[in-house]
Amino acid sequence: MARVGTRPENRHQARFLRILRDSGPQSRAELGDAVELSKSKVAIEVERLAELGFVDIVGLAASRGGRRSQMVALSQNLRFVGIDIGATSIDVAVLDGELNLLGQDRAETDVRLGPRVVLDQATDLVAKLRASLAGGSVAGVGVGVPGPVSQAEGALVAPPIMPGWSRFPIRDVLGAALGAPVMVDNDVNVMALGELHAGTARSVRDLLFVKIGTGIGCGIVVGGEIYRGVNGSAGDIGHIQVDGHGPVCACGNTGCLEAAFGGAALARDAEAAARSGRSAYLAEMLGKTLSAKDVGAAADAGDPVSLALIRDGGTRIGKVLASLVSFFNPGLVVIGGGVAGLGHPLLAEIRSVVYRRSLPLATGNLPIVLSELGGTAGVVGAGRLISDSALSVNGQSATN
Amino acid sequence: MARVGTRPENRHQARFLRILRDSGPQSRAELGDAVELSKSKVAIEVERLAELGFVDIVGLAASRGGRRSQMVALSQNLRFVGIDIGATSIDVAVLDGELNLLGQDRAETDVRLGPRVVLDQATDLVAKLRASLAGGSVAGVGVGVPGPVSQAEGALVAPPIMPGWSRFPIRDVLGAALGAPVMVDNDVNVMALGELHAGTARSVRDLLFVKIGTGIGCGIVVGGEIYRGVNGSAGDIGHIQVDGHGPVCACGNTGCLEAAFGGAALARDAEAAARSGRSAYLAEMLGKTLSAKDVGAAADAGDPVSLALIRDGGTRIGKVLASLVSFFNPGLVVIGGGVAGLGHPLLAEIRSVVYRRSLPLATGNLPIVLSELGGTAGVVGAGRLISDSALSVNGQSATN
Repeated sequence: MARVGTRPENRHQARFLRILRDSGPQSRAELGDAVELSKSKVAIEVERLAELGFVDIVGLAASRGGRRSQMVALSQNLRFVGIDIGATSIDVAVLDGELNLLGQDRAETDVRLGPRVVLDQATDLVAKLRASLAGGSVAGVGVGVPGPVSQAEGALVAPPIMPGWSRFPIRDVLGAALGAPVMVDNDVNVMALGELHAGTARSVRDLLFVKIGTGIGCGIVVGGEIYRGVNGSAGDIGHIQVDGHGPVCACGNTGCLEAAFGGAALARDAEAAARSGRSAYLAEMLGKTLSAKDVGAAADAGDPVSLALIRDGGTRIGKVLASLVSFFNPGLVVIGGGVAGLGHPLLAEIRSVVYRRSLPLATGNLPIVLSELGGTAGVVGAGRLISDSALSVNGQSATN
Repeated sequence: MARVGTRPENRHQARFLRILRDSGPQSRAELGDAVELSKSKVAIEVERLAELGFVDIVGLAASRGGRRSQMVALSQNLRFVGIDIGATSIDVAVLDGELNLLGQDRAETDVRLGPRVVLDQATDLVAKLRASLAGGSVAGVGVGVPGPVSQAEGALVAPPIMPGWSRFPIRDVLGAALGAPVMVDNDVNVMALGELHAGTARSVRDLLFVKIGTGIGCGIVVGGEIYRGVNGSAGDIGHIQVDGHGPVCACGNTGCLEAAFGGAALARDAEAAARSGRSAYLAEMLGKTLSAKDVGAAADAGDPVSLALIRDGGTRIGKVLASLVSFFNPGLVVIGGGVAGLGHPLLAEIRSVVYRRSLPLATGNLPIVLSELGGTAGVVGAGRLISDSALSVNGQSATN
């Protein structure tokens, strides 16, 4: 990569780069098959991509009968950076052109400290990680943040409980600090992209990725691309009302899904069960603040109250998902986020409710699975986000 | 149109035809602006389209400074046929190339008579209507049917309460009878296409069209195209569970939206209110089978029981829609279908529930409106369905 911000010059070059990113090294003949270009034109475009620093010629392919064709791979120097900012943590990763993880790091944070502090922390983490990894040239940085994002502004818009972040120019500030093009998106969308690139969802075009963390959100993939809705708020299912008489939510409404389940709600319910003495297991853990993880540990140890809390949460998520599955008819549902770590009892309950309540036509072949990527979905997806842009002609989308 | 089944030869021609269909006659210069082709290439493609019988040269445009440019319009001979098959009626229309209605007709039917009888009836209606309208050449026929459709087969797949229709080759049988290419889709998708072409939705890319007829369904438009889901069942919201203790639905489950509201449920509830004497208005109408329309008339006449039935239905629809709006973040919601004729009290209730319960970010600029097309949404949408195919290079989609 000679120059930061270099882009492919036409849609054939862009298509070649996507293929090399998603399917690994290819012979020139294979690339030619994929785009219906003459041999000589393929050769010209590949040569140009090598000159631009996007690809390397890595040898000769096996013969297909005639002369052996050159093997082409994404440049070994190509790097993307993925940053996943959560409410209480920052994950960063350096990825190669195919979005394989070359290294990653993590730090505790608190988004309530405001964007300057948190983004400085992220910049330092990236710098430290880059220094520990030899070579490479960063073609772009993808960032996931826990709230509604305006893509046009590269900023959060009115995120709940994140004072100082609304319209703060994350893209521009990180771009200046890291010296590379930056793209910002909602954390759940970014995780869905990660699943699409490297997880169970690789071969699926229409899917839902449900993140159950402190809060609850849904990434929607239509035709292999993230669907964001007209205001970028699509998939914000945490505030769907599941119980007219339920607890008051942080958003001010009553009975939101997120107020009934999710990391924060589970911690609250565990605390109550411990203090009231209903769960001896949880009561033993008191003295520190209880978390969703503690509920999982207590359930594993055989605590019926904790198991009931998890099952009850699964039922609530399942009811909402059943409606969404009937409506959206996806090919796959992936459950991720920290609370998904509760594992099988949660998944079993969600599946049971969805399969019972959705239309048979919509669930006939519908797998509902836990994320395989776990904690890396966010950083890999952030890399995918920026690589979709960096490997396109105009930086806009995956369609050219 | 010299020959049935003629198609544009390349994507520039296809693009010109779409522009002429959706925006009316254009000068050659305007067409050139839209596709970034040289003047001479535009002239060649337009000439070819005229030879193929797709367009007419209709005079000279006003000068833009230099020589006056030719005005191009879709051929006056171009015709599409739209057929909208409902549970108890068939609507047919003949449309010009811009999908303006040239004539329409309607007949009572009963889909339970089976596909042979009903499709014969439809064929006769079309033949009669065509005979009454002079000239033109039918480039294709679009058909909406009330159940889940396999586009690949051009047939319904396991539609409830339609004996004999499952996998019956509607496309092939009508194609042979009418001597033109046929495309079949679910009636709600077809109505959504009608709104997209000629209704309030013209300028919107992402929207929901909710049909409240005998049953309830939803057409989903993503990026200006119908989203069908992986099995073609997307938008089937009639069987979303709204009440765990509600009435048993025709589908066998309990508490489906469709069992609680919609034409059939409203008629059932009206009958009960009449027989129990709770509504004197409705009781007076007894002696015939009560319908949703009767409930509307009674409400207009001031019957509080009928008004309560409508409001209660609006609340139920509103609750489901509120979740879908939070999830999908559409730019517009259109309410159509026969029961939408209940008008303002229904709409007011739906709006009130959605605006109260959905995310503010998703409803900030969200219009919820009644369909302007009413009864013609289906036939216009069916015309749009087939014209999207007939005016494309490969007959597949709107993207070429």
